[in-house]
Amino acid sequence: MSRVVVVGAGFAGLAAVRELRKSGAQVTLVDHHLYSTFQPLLYQVASGGLNPGDIAYPTRNFVHRHGARFRRGSVTAIDIEAQELVLDGAARVVYDYLLLASGVTTNYFGVPGAAEHSLALYTRQEAIILRDRLMAGLETLATRGGSGDLTAVIVGGGTTGVETAGALAELRNAGVRAAFPEITPGQVNIVLVEQSPELLASYPPRLRRYALAQLRKRGVQVRLDTPVREVTHDTITVGDGAVLRADLTIWAAGVAAAAGVHEWGLPHDRRGRIVVDDHLRVASHPNLFVAGDLASLDGHPLPQQAQPAIQTGTHAGRQIRRLLASEPTQRFRYRDKGTMATIGRNAAVVALPYGVRVTGAPAWVAWLGLHIVMLLGNRNRLSTLLNLSWRYLAWPSGNSLIVGDLPAQD
Amino acid sequence: MSRVVVVGAGFAGLAAVRELRKSGAQVTLVDHHLYSTFQPLLYQVASGGLNPGDIAYPTRNFVHRHGARFRRGSVTAIDIEAQELVLDGAARVVYDYLLLASGVTTNYFGVPGAAEHSLALYTRQEAIILRDRLMAGLETLATRGGSGDLTAVIVGGGTTGVETAGALAELRNAGVRAAFPEITPGQVNIVLVEQSPELLASYPPRLRRYALAQLRKRGVQVRLDTPVREVTHDTITVGDGAVLRADLTIWAAGVAAAAGVHEWGLPHDRRGRIVVDDHLRVASHPNLFVAGDLASLDGHPLPQQAQPAIQTGTHAGRQIRRLLASEPTQRFRYRDKGTMATIGRNAAVVALPYGVRVTGAPAWVAWLGLHIVMLLGNRNRLSTLLNLSWRYLAWPSGNSLIVGDLPAQD
Repeated sequence: MSRVVVVGAGFAGLAAVRELRKSGAQVTLVDHHLYSTFQPLLYQVASGGLNPGDIAYPTRNFVHRHGARFRRGSVTAIDIEAQELVLDGAARVVYDYLLLASGVTTNYFGVPGAAEHSLALYTRQEAIILRDRLMAGLETLATRGGSGDLTAVIVGGGTTGVETAGALAELRNAGVRAAFPEITPGQVNIVLVEQSPELLASYPPRLRRYALAQLRKRGVQVRLDTPVREVTHDTITVGDGAVLRADLTIWAAGVAAAAGVHEWGLPHDRRGRIVVDDHLRVASHPNLFVAGDLASLDGHPLPQQAQPAIQTGTHAGRQIRRLLASEPTQRFRYRDKGTMATIGRNAAVVALPYGVRVTGAPAWVAWLGLHIVMLLGNRNRLSTLLNLSWRYLAWPSGNSLIVGDLPAQD
Repeated sequence: MSRVVVVGAGFAGLAAVRELRKSGAQVTLVDHHLYSTFQPLLYQVASGGLNPGDIAYPTRNFVHRHGARFRRGSVTAIDIEAQELVLDGAARVVYDYLLLASGVTTNYFGVPGAAEHSLALYTRQEAIILRDRLMAGLETLATRGGSGDLTAVIVGGGTTGVETAGALAELRNAGVRAAFPEITPGQVNIVLVEQSPELLASYPPRLRRYALAQLRKRGVQVRLDTPVREVTHDTITVGDGAVLRADLTIWAAGVAAAAGVHEWGLPHDRRGRIVVDDHLRVASHPNLFVAGDLASLDGHPLPQQAQPAIQTGTHAGRQIRRLLASEPTQRFRYRDKGTMATIGRNAAVVALPYGVRVTGAPAWVAWLGLHIVMLLGNRNRLSTLLNLSWRYLAWPSGNSLIVGDLPAQD
């Protein structure tokens, strides 16, 4: 039986496992974590809107239902000659076909102090750390009883940065009232810093303007044309030399492949992502595919989002099936199904194909509905629906902050 | 304005704050934690049925809504002369009336190794640690692929022990299937050890027999008449010298006052609880009351449960109000409203006054309903209703284990 190994339990890897279900091959999914994280809602965990468990699904359960196997581990090397993955702890996994879909990680672009002093938002653990730091800061503010302030600076005005800034504004304007009645919204500053002249650069102009206006309406201080030069534990130095105070710096400025990927000996672009041809195959390695954020499609950069990851994962899985059936591989074509970002209560932007643009409450409802459907597991779907509805529809009337397991404070 | 200080944000302390709402006094609640934990459902967090956030409510929010203040800290001493509480960090809080309701903690009864090698289930943090240890054990078992086993031993057959054993049996029989498909239920052993000849000693005989039969039906190995002599990291030595294997030991055998309470200079019983008269007042200290688990009512021991805590807290708060109004204090009379324990899906025991006994599905529904109503916060109520319904009604069909934030594994 042919052995197919898929690395990474994100959107791309899971899509591939799903596609390979009836391939007849022995499929093994390798991932360092036991749970697959639904990354598009990480910022909700970070801002106390969702339980960490709401956006986590046991990978074993998924692979088992799709007739595959799970192997826990991180890839440290690929032995192309022997067709073997080397995992941490030196275990080896033999493959006939290999799909790499282990994603990317935060890119600090060499900004001094950024890696040491800012918090990223790319894994569940990072979201929990950010939440705990944020709540500890609010707690300190509350004990001071009405004096002082707390400034959170988000670096990067892409989808992650805009959604995080919006969620923190929601937290400040409504959520804090219940958990920290001593704090007034004016004591909490949310600053969003973006180096380019616009937010959400990949969106149509009208939606960019809408997002900017909505964030400002919600009290987010948006600073455009503002590159970050340096980060310290409580400041950010920006392009014109100005120094901003930042009790908390959240880095949402970009992603790159993890450092270890360089050592796999595969061709990569300047962000370390593996370069593939338009069949998603690594040139001169006919049995090696790459999907999701880790794939660098020459000349056709894809957004680092769920849809491209799912589509490339499905395509790569299908090509492996075709090779197993001795059929030729096919070209990948990205089908734009639209993008969306949420800013706050009844405020979101949706850009659909054919120039369809939606903003406001209808976009917010579409955003909520789509994310509920995309989550794995009905319990997670219901819990997320409940918690997000609570946050955005009922928040002012009572507690909805999910911070019940601060380890340092319990 | 008179200053009333309440120590402890459990059932008793919150009931007192509620009662003192319109007393005209300045009420301050002191607690070490920011969140009030709903202890009766801690074992559900430990067994992956509820999110830690589902059973936590921000204490600031509660006290603020009741016109009181919150002060974070632990009591290290009471200066009776100066009428001052000394908190950790040496801060002092002046009082005219003081209510101590800071609860109790786990009692290992001097059993060698018990404190070091067993896990307690009395705080939210302990529940999370137990959950993580349990899931890490199941993960190790799953990677071994079908061989080996895992034995969890619960020491103590009171309500906590019985409910924990029942929840772990539910986890083993149904929940594990989704998250760890490699594990068969037969590889997980749940053992409940009780030193007396019966489980749930405070319940009527018929309910005790029902609970025992239900646990055994669910595959829990119940060992009665079995005192524990010693605990090591992977064994338990019992009364007849037999040594049981225990990959995980859960200590649910009893409670006592925290060690620090001895240093407060107040009269205490052999378990360190503060002795009060039948007005809940410390003899010869007319402005000092004790409520909840920390109170030792001479000659009238109360069960260490929510109802007695609420009733004593309310009574103590009311007596302070009477003293503020220069009225004499009144005797406390416990009104038995019944007790309940749940064993598993559609299986619970309820003992009501006037000899009313309920078992099975009706008892289970009553248990669920009462706990939902008693929780603080509508979001917590809905989330708990959802998660517990999922666990007990829909579990076999999909993932419902809440373990999405294992820190060590992320």
